Amino acid sequence: MAKQKASQDTIKRLFLYYRTILESTDIKVVSSEELAKRTGVPAALIRKDLSFFGEFGTPGKGYYIDNLSNHLKKILGMDRDWEVALVGVGNMGRALLTYPKFKLQGFKISQIFDSAPDKIGKTCAGFRIKDIADIKQVLQKEGESGRMNIAIVTVPANVAQEVANILVDAGVRAILNFAPAQLFVPENVIVTNIDVSNEMARLTYFLSQEESEDKSQ
Amino acid sequence: MAKQKASQDTIKRLFLYYRTILESTDIKVVSSEELAKRTGVPAALIRKDLSFFGEFGTPGKGYYIDNLSNHLKKILGMDRDWEVALVGVGNMGRALLTYPKFKLQGFKISQIFDSAPDKIGKTCAGFRIKDIADIKQVLQKEGESGRMNIAIVTVPANVAQEVANILVDAGVRAILNFAPAQLFVPENVIVTNIDVSNEMARLTYFLSQEESEDKSQ
Repeated sequence: MAKQKASQDTIKRLFLYYRTILESTDIKVVSSEELAKRTGVPAALIRKDLSFFGEFGTPGKGYYIDNLSNHLKKILGMDRDWEVALVGVGNMGRALLTYPKFKLQGFKISQIFDSAPDKIGKTCAGFRIKDIADIKQVLQKEGESGRMNIAIVTVPANVAQEVANILVDAGVRAILNFAPAQLFVPENVIVTNIDVSNEMARLTYFLSQEESEDKSQ
Repeated sequence: MAKQKASQDTIKRLFLYYRTILESTDIKVVSSEELAKRTGVPAALIRKDLSFFGEFGTPGKGYYIDNLSNHLKKILGMDRDWEVALVGVGNMGRALLTYPKFKLQGFKISQIFDSAPDKIGKTCAGFRIKDIADIKQVLQKEGESGRMNIAIVTVPANVAQEVANILVDAGVRAILNFAPAQLFVPENVIVTNIDVSNEMARLTYFLSQEESEDKSQ
């Protein structure tokens, strides 16, 4: 079945619907209006998003939770397990190693890497830290099942591009980047960025704007 | 000076320009083409973004780094210090307490809170953990300088809304939310969400799509 590609914003909302209905253990059927109330997304947009993927609900009733949940799970690629490599065992990397939601989503961090000699070979949260120089070899061996193609990058900004190049070379196709650096990758590789400083800047922009508006009134 | 509000995406890019020119210590003037190369944003869009804020550069030369840096810093509200409260001292909270970029951006986490009796009163990364029940009292006392209006929320999803309510009640105007939960707040409060699971879902959506395309060919 050939599907059209949905926008990044649509995917974000689909995940929000998915998470919300997983939490909605009190009901078996949900109307778009009720889902709107629980997610904060307008009901019309919910209907549009879901119909894009051929999920139309039952007129006068709504969406059957079990059905919708399975459907969304499949669309989001969460109906299977994913092995993930983590590069950079600093504070953020360590926090992610024990991130409780990953397991529920089918993510399993199975290899961790760092370049610091005093970290390599040590154990962290049950994982042995391997040398970043061995990534290609390790991932390609692990990758025989065809699944080791997601990596989380939690290294300092000044080495992030170098690490991304190594990962791409090792066959990684999807990167979650925590480093405050823009990564340049080939077109067939996806990068999503979590940039804490950037999000904070959005808050201070907002607060500064409000202040200057207050002053100008 | 009354300014029009820029979109969230514009703000994200402004911050990217700002960070990039801070790192561009090798040059004194930057053309939009050079900035495009260093940020991955098309030159025309850079010119559009900057002209929106009245920054036009010098024809045939480009933007003076010092000038542009100061201008962006001011727009983004980063020409001053911001005191920040952190709620939830788990793994993610702890990682943020030592996040190296915050200091450079003028952010100072100055109060940390948790609700767990075994954490309250203990010290973490040099901070004494205070009781979440005392937030309002602590923030309003601290807030005499008018600056304690940003909070970072790193609590479990099931208590995130309750914490947000307390923060809003205590006068917090901007929340960086790490909890995988949709927060409902009044219109004069801004929330930005960092949702690790959601970003991971975007990656698996992409990988699943690619696979189903490969199969259908």
